[in-house]
Amino acid sequence: MDLGKRKIIVQKYGGTSVGSVERIKEVARRIAERKKEYDAIAVVVSAMGKETDRLISLAGELTGSPSLREIDVLLSSGEQVSAALLVMALEERGVNARSFLSFQIPILTDERHAAALIREIRVEKLLQCFQEGCVAVVAGFQGITQTGEITTLGRGGSDTTAVALAAALNADFCEIYTDVNGVYTCDPQIHAARKLARISYEGMMELAGLGAKVLHNRCVELARKFNVKIHVRSSFNNEEGTWVNGREEEMEGALISSVTYSREEAKISVLGVPDKPGIASMIFIPLAEMGINVDMIIQNIGRQNAADLTFTVHEEDLEKALQVVKKVAVEIGAEGVHSDRNIAKISIVGGGMHSNPGVASLMFQVLAREGINIMMISTSEIKISCIIDSRYTELAVRILHDAFKLGES
Amino acid sequence: MDLGKRKIIVQKYGGTSVGSVERIKEVARRIAERKKEYDAIAVVVSAMGKETDRLISLAGELTGSPSLREIDVLLSSGEQVSAALLVMALEERGVNARSFLSFQIPILTDERHAAALIREIRVEKLLQCFQEGCVAVVAGFQGITQTGEITTLGRGGSDTTAVALAAALNADFCEIYTDVNGVYTCDPQIHAARKLARISYEGMMELAGLGAKVLHNRCVELARKFNVKIHVRSSFNNEEGTWVNGREEEMEGALISSVTYSREEAKISVLGVPDKPGIASMIFIPLAEMGINVDMIIQNIGRQNAADLTFTVHEEDLEKALQVVKKVAVEIGAEGVHSDRNIAKISIVGGGMHSNPGVASLMFQVLAREGINIMMISTSEIKISCIIDSRYTELAVRILHDAFKLGES
Repeated sequence: MDLGKRKIIVQKYGGTSVGSVERIKEVARRIAERKKEYDAIAVVVSAMGKETDRLISLAGELTGSPSLREIDVLLSSGEQVSAALLVMALEERGVNARSFLSFQIPILTDERHAAALIREIRVEKLLQCFQEGCVAVVAGFQGITQTGEITTLGRGGSDTTAVALAAALNADFCEIYTDVNGVYTCDPQIHAARKLARISYEGMMELAGLGAKVLHNRCVELARKFNVKIHVRSSFNNEEGTWVNGREEEMEGALISSVTYSREEAKISVLGVPDKPGIASMIFIPLAEMGINVDMIIQNIGRQNAADLTFTVHEEDLEKALQVVKKVAVEIGAEGVHSDRNIAKISIVGGGMHSNPGVASLMFQVLAREGINIMMISTSEIKISCIIDSRYTELAVRILHDAFKLGES
Repeated sequence: MDLGKRKIIVQKYGGTSVGSVERIKEVARRIAERKKEYDAIAVVVSAMGKETDRLISLAGELTGSPSLREIDVLLSSGEQVSAALLVMALEERGVNARSFLSFQIPILTDERHAAALIREIRVEKLLQCFQEGCVAVVAGFQGITQTGEITTLGRGGSDTTAVALAAALNADFCEIYTDVNGVYTCDPQIHAARKLARISYEGMMELAGLGAKVLHNRCVELARKFNVKIHVRSSFNNEEGTWVNGREEEMEGALISSVTYSREEAKISVLGVPDKPGIASMIFIPLAEMGINVDMIIQNIGRQNAADLTFTVHEEDLEKALQVVKKVAVEIGAEGVHSDRNIAKISIVGGGMHSNPGVASLMFQVLAREGINIMMISTSEIKISCIIDSRYTELAVRILHDAFKLGES
């Protein structure tokens, strides 16, 4: 086989896709189908269903502060089991296959346990496997350091393994199988949504950052960097999913593609902040040092050279952030600190916003018409986000989806 | 730390000893205790409780004939999980520790999947771990080939890992923690038995071969070869267990040490076998080729140059063996084939039999006195085994235990 002339594809199956023996058999059936068209298939698997949670919970019963090195040894066993079982299911169908753990390829990473970055994937052993007509089944989510330590890649790890593998193998594309049918114009549980046939890397990254849970940002960034075409689709049916590929600037005329929301935000206001240079950094530097991400920030200049400073953080970080902010507020002589968990971030995402100023004003009008107050606004080249009262989340998604005619293809 | 002057020990904890989070905490407590006396401790762990069975059953749902390569990848995950969890439990107690998988040490084996033999253990990384004051927690039962394939060692694998490690590290001794208190003069569930303080390697091997399930023969053979002292004991209490060490010939005067039984035997008789050279090999060579172990054999010369040939096999092999034997019986013109599952092998084990001919005759007398018929007999330097009707198993154990005064120390 001359691999130079063959099409190579990478597939990735997530936890629910390999969540049971029956699901693993179904995945094997799918791979066997694909094998008729492609001689070279690398398959990346996640741990079965709730296996990772089970292992984390065992560790939690033993210690409140496990060493990350050992967490990686523990968790990487999950994908190892999935990989071996999938090979057995493939062999049972008469498809030659072989499992690969990170150290066997190797997939080399840096030394950061639980959040390792892939440095290099050597593909020789995989190519040899392809030459022998074998499907390569790779345990996702994990890597190995130069000194032979097991690492894991952190959130979205198996997606990242798949995209990195597709880049290293120069694969035609990377299929990411999950439990949803693709990327939608909004949450299908809230409103009749339309599945997008295609979205740009940048659009997908905004969506992932804004609450869409289909693909992790990190894997999309990697795909963008190496120009890997991703096809996000369901392993529970045969529908075409959504292709993630191409850059936003190449997509002229593509306007708003989706409405997203996140209720996982909280708002902190520091009231009556003296208007002096350096005050903002006194608040935001300690937050950054604690690893707390600040998303949106506004400052209203008010009476007597004092301002109100308002910003949002992930609601999980609220308590920690408040501790810091209350302390700083006293130091800088602010009048007080308020916080609010009952907010939501509603965003519209798509290309061409910069050249279509009408988009933002339409969004504000539509929300105003329903009496929804906009507390904060932030914009980028390809999205506009508004913070609103969380009780209006579903209403806002529906009216924006309709106003931007996202249900029509 | 000058390791040359330090005492190194190896401990092994079996599946029930690490069967739950609570058990793992208890094992960590034990290791922490030992750490006060020994600076260098290597701990070998099995998979938790029924984890290996769970994995085998998953594989069984996928295929009837899994590739042994993938079975090894699958099963080795079990010990990996135990090792990581035990390190976490140790660290929680303030004991520095580090997990080691086979490829990280490495523990090199041959290429035989599911039944690999250890070729070499490189101890540099373990010694470095000891130098840093760390307990080395090693995933048992598994190895790695020169080309990076994961292997497993087959039955008794973790015990074998522990003894091999003790040999490679030149450890003072190897503690094998299990769910029984040691090696007994007979099955404590049948008769008031006495725990042996010590048994020779050969005696232990005979016991293991004769049905005692405390230690696997393979690990005892290895211990004998490298003169590794084994201490078999319970992880559920602090009692001294049984020391397995020393050769039989060094133990002058030590007579019968135990009575064992096995009901897992079956008897096959080929009746009216023509008395010609080469007939026996026509029966036993095909059995050997199928991997069926023949244990005891007797041949009774009878009428007209025909003999009855009787032998025993493991009862699991009975059906397979009968298929072969019935075919051969026709070819050689034998009169028929009988089989019997309702037999038991009763054995007395101990040193000094060769120089004490009275031992065998006492055994036969005791059985005869109770009307127990002896169907077959086999002897070695350190054991005498009799095949009897299985319904007399417990009775035979009790009367032999009493006759040889094994209850008295």
